[in-house]
Amino acid sequence: MTQKLKILVILGSVREGRVAEPIGNWVMGAADADRDDLDCELIDLKQWDLPFYPHPKPPAAGDYADAKQIAWGEKVASADGFILIAPEYNHGIPAVLKNALDTVYAEWNRKPVAFVAYGGMGGARAVEQLTMVSRELQMAPLEGALHLQGVWNRREGGRFAADTREGARLNHLFDELAWWGKALRNARAAG
Amino acid sequence: MTQKLKILVILGSVREGRVAEPIGNWVMGAADADRDDLDCELIDLKQWDLPFYPHPKPPAAGDYADAKQIAWGEKVASADGFILIAPEYNHGIPAVLKNALDTVYAEWNRKPVAFVAYGGMGGARAVEQLTMVSRELQMAPLEGALHLQGVWNRREGGRFAADTREGARLNHLFDELAWWGKALRNARAAG
Repeated sequence: MTQKLKILVILGSVREGRVAEPIGNWVMGAADADRDDLDCELIDLKQWDLPFYPHPKPPAAGDYADAKQIAWGEKVASADGFILIAPEYNHGIPAVLKNALDTVYAEWNRKPVAFVAYGGMGGARAVEQLTMVSRELQMAPLEGALHLQGVWNRREGGRFAADTREGARLNHLFDELAWWGKALRNARAAG
Repeated sequence: MTQKLKILVILGSVREGRVAEPIGNWVMGAADADRDDLDCELIDLKQWDLPFYPHPKPPAAGDYADAKQIAWGEKVASADGFILIAPEYNHGIPAVLKNALDTVYAEWNRKPVAFVAYGGMGGARAVEQLTMVSRELQMAPLEGALHLQGVWNRREGGRFAADTREGARLNHLFDELAWWGKALRNARAAG
């Protein structure tokens, strides 16, 4: 049997009462229930507590400067793909999510990234900006993002109360992530 | 005599050895030497040390939650316009600059913002993303941004060694900022 794909589900908000958390729990629950091909891990940037990028060397140099940057690089390196739970702040990317992306470099390369976004217009503009950034990080930003609307009153017991269409779209996103994740893992292994 | 326009020159990087600092000093020096209509203040986000936006209420609600957010709002409110010294990180906005923009809201409204950018392609993509974000903050993002290229070896004694063309472009940006700053200050005062 093929080894499961390791997927990091990254919460793109550290705000108190963030909706990112119930949405992330919903994604994790759906993966646990429905996918035996994906091994998902929830990443809370609040616990990681990465500083605003402080080092003189750019992450692309690969010469990491402290234990936190090294540990974050190892965590990102361990994954075959990513799901970003992405709020939209002022038509752009939340700083905490952009900073996590900016903190390391090579570990993102040649891996797929899927977006589960929310906010005004379902986080559409945040996803467009994340698409530009993902390309520069040598990732494959996947089509078929979930743009969740009106999320603020749809929290139930720590989970997001998704409707049937959103559940189906999430499963489609898992399918795409699985296809790209396997394809690129095989290709990275082949060199 | 008309009161000088108060302009904040915001350093968009907190990296050790940041080029933003000599570029900011160059901008400050040029304003001091050549402009009796602009009262510029250098803002170092490293000293402000704002946290990744943590509060449940969005800044647009205007109900600020702690002393730091209140103080940052007062500083932004004191200004008639802004010059952002903007690096480009992975084809996007540095997290520390995005976070400063995201931390307050009303205090940015109906004011002009000018960009002095650097990085690959002179920070062109960071400026495009900042344009989208500025519009959502109800600012006027000014045309005529400075896109500084090859900046890393052009530091001289804490200042950026600009060429004649760049000096002329900066003065043009000051002109634009003065025009928009006065127009909008008058209009805000009129209600």
